[in-house]
Amino acid sequence: LKGQTALANGQKPNALLSAPFALGSSEAQAVASIRKHGPLSRTEIADVTGYSRSKITSVINTLTHLGVLEEIGDGESNGGRRPRVLNFCPEFGYLVGVDMGATSLDVALTNFNGQIIYRLSHVIDVRQGPEVVLSLLRDLVLETLTQLGIQASKIYAFGIGVPGPVEFSTGLLIAPPIMPRWEAFPIRTFIQETFPCAIVVVDNDVNVMALGELRAGSGNNHENFIFVKVGTGIGAGIVCNGQIYRGSNGCAGDIGHICADRNGPPCHCGNIGCLEAIAAGPTIAKRAMEAARNDPDTVLAKFMDEQNGKLTAHDVGRAAMEGDRIANEIIRESGRMIGEVLAGLVNFYNPSLVLIGGGVSNIGHQFLASIRRGILHRSLPLSTRHLRIDTSPMGADVGVMGAIALALEHVFVVENGHAKYVKP
Amino acid sequence: LKGQTALANGQKPNALLSAPFALGSSEAQAVASIRKHGPLSRTEIADVTGYSRSKITSVINTLTHLGVLEEIGDGESNGGRRPRVLNFCPEFGYLVGVDMGATSLDVALTNFNGQIIYRLSHVIDVRQGPEVVLSLLRDLVLETLTQLGIQASKIYAFGIGVPGPVEFSTGLLIAPPIMPRWEAFPIRTFIQETFPCAIVVVDNDVNVMALGELRAGSGNNHENFIFVKVGTGIGAGIVCNGQIYRGSNGCAGDIGHICADRNGPPCHCGNIGCLEAIAAGPTIAKRAMEAARNDPDTVLAKFMDEQNGKLTAHDVGRAAMEGDRIANEIIRESGRMIGEVLAGLVNFYNPSLVLIGGGVSNIGHQFLASIRRGILHRSLPLSTRHLRIDTSPMGADVGVMGAIALALEHVFVVENGHAKYVKP
Repeated sequence: LKGQTALANGQKPNALLSAPFALGSSEAQAVASIRKHGPLSRTEIADVTGYSRSKITSVINTLTHLGVLEEIGDGESNGGRRPRVLNFCPEFGYLVGVDMGATSLDVALTNFNGQIIYRLSHVIDVRQGPEVVLSLLRDLVLETLTQLGIQASKIYAFGIGVPGPVEFSTGLLIAPPIMPRWEAFPIRTFIQETFPCAIVVVDNDVNVMALGELRAGSGNNHENFIFVKVGTGIGAGIVCNGQIYRGSNGCAGDIGHICADRNGPPCHCGNIGCLEAIAAGPTIAKRAMEAARNDPDTVLAKFMDEQNGKLTAHDVGRAAMEGDRIANEIIRESGRMIGEVLAGLVNFYNPSLVLIGGGVSNIGHQFLASIRRGILHRSLPLSTRHLRIDTSPMGADVGVMGAIALALEHVFVVENGHAKYVKP
Repeated sequence: LKGQTALANGQKPNALLSAPFALGSSEAQAVASIRKHGPLSRTEIADVTGYSRSKITSVINTLTHLGVLEEIGDGESNGGRRPRVLNFCPEFGYLVGVDMGATSLDVALTNFNGQIIYRLSHVIDVRQGPEVVLSLLRDLVLETLTQLGIQASKIYAFGIGVPGPVEFSTGLLIAPPIMPRWEAFPIRTFIQETFPCAIVVVDNDVNVMALGELRAGSGNNHENFIFVKVGTGIGAGIVCNGQIYRGSNGCAGDIGHICADRNGPPCHCGNIGCLEAIAAGPTIAKRAMEAARNDPDTVLAKFMDEQNGKLTAHDVGRAAMEGDRIANEIIRESGRMIGEVLAGLVNFYNPSLVLIGGGVSNIGHQFLASIRRGILHRSLPLSTRHLRIDTSPMGADVGVMGAIALALEHVFVVENGHAKYVKP
């Protein structure tokens, strides 16, 4: 236990963090139990871990000396003296959650309990490449820290969701279609140059969103569910036995190029009839613009006039709300196709929950209704008997909340049974 | 530890089995380590379990007194005296593996090490209902036991694969399409009337086959793979993180009714273009019979003549082997459609292995080649980079071997950390 040794030498707890040090596996168990259940008394930690009272006393002493845990007041009594409850010391360190989109950067700074203390959004163009975008991210975080009087060395983890396929073990993007310049760029190293005490965990944005739902959203009672992001592209995050499932190469959930119609339109990937080419945001917008050109007497045509001849999927949703028949039909068709592909995945995977999120998911209630119909129409009765199909209740926040959950899960990396801080 | 108590009272070990008794969790750990690694010395069991030498001595004493384990001779020496190696006592008890098809019953009887000591097959019609089929199964097993001089009370587990959806926790068939009379029939209770010391584990046949591949076939180096059975129907068994994945209702892998072609033929399920309606055995046979009628100058037509105007998928395979162009085309088309649907599942699930089994899988090398082409054509490059696509090497044995693996995994049921025999 390097940590304990260092303490014995009289150093201040936080000085320990400039060198890699490991928590003993007992300390790691205690930390994990509070991460999972929230604030606990010593007795409750003993119940969860199965350790003796004397061992718990020693473990908690170590963790409070290190400054990881603190007593936060009295818990509920079972008759006798009310027990002191332990929780993470919020100022022990800070975490950054990043939700990177093709055109937006959403950042949350939280304390060690995962409570947001600062939140910001910035317009970006991810195609400008990793140096430009990550320098901006770095500067935004540094600026925030200066405002709040927090040192960069107090950031202990970054969780980052990116819109492309990630090799999770290395944190590298592999052949990312919409951000080719990011291929194999060392995001971890770049961040750790400025935040040397941070571990950096990078994952595909949809996996991160699924994790957000699992930890803080609709998914937390579901062992097996699918989170579907519908936006410029279509992708899925898979939760299996209560954990993110990444597949053998880390690219599980890439459902945008599943064939939805063998006689469908060509896709930018070179294939025919991909779901993404039929039902994602750009296609919804394109169909609406065609319809508006053909019939100038519609709400869609009015919107297009107001916006210099351009429409987005969001505009189609607005037009549908105002009763535009074609807009409604386009939305229904998109939902139906997504539902039919999801029906196949429901037959295969038998989840208890399908959550629809992403920028296009709030395009109108017809969208969810059509996805539901598509799924129910083509799935087997047994697999839909207890299936819930819904939009993500966390909405736009699911990305940063998932990124914070990712950071929280990895801030104590467990290796060989020991949780440790990993230095760059 | 009821077992130890009973021993202390001087009863014979096997008498214990007439009453439910539990192994301590330490004994269960030792048993599990040998199940996983094969015969081990005491030192090796200590290494695997992390127990002290003195604890291991006590645990092994208990297990050898009970007759579960026995010493089978000397292991490899590290210099000193050669250590004694422990394994399951083969005669401690016996297991039955059953692979039930629509028209066939395959049964294997093994010793407690899972080695087959008797194997039989019988023609059945599963539509005759559970009483008829299970009575036959019971009589076949009893007959075998009489021949071998083994008591029915020495059968400690039945693993049974059935061709329909199973609620795994209860072992009941739920709305089974090809065997409606089996709906919710208590298979466990029926078997246990004759074999009172047996635990009975029932699962869907394709899950059982996937388990067979996982434990004894191609799947044992793969954490995530899909086993596809192509026969009268089409279904999949899913292995996730080294375990059978059953989904939220136990019906995961039901891929036969995924839409393969929105403009395809109607399916018996009431939908249009289901994979099963396009590519399974009966459709292959039906297409071949149509072709033979249209062109009497073909190998297919010759075979049909020889078989009273009937063809099976197997005949189409034979005709293809003899160079019949239409037969080859039918096989290729079936393989291609299966491959295209599997491509979507590969994009979603990112397995490292897809295994093709079932009665139709050996219809000719064109079949596998077309499935491969279909998958590679429509899957994303990252998800197929390390993907192996192959036919099941275990062939017709995979069902009974999987059923034995199922029995072996459950013969010691672990409940609350204790492995125990479960009495009916």
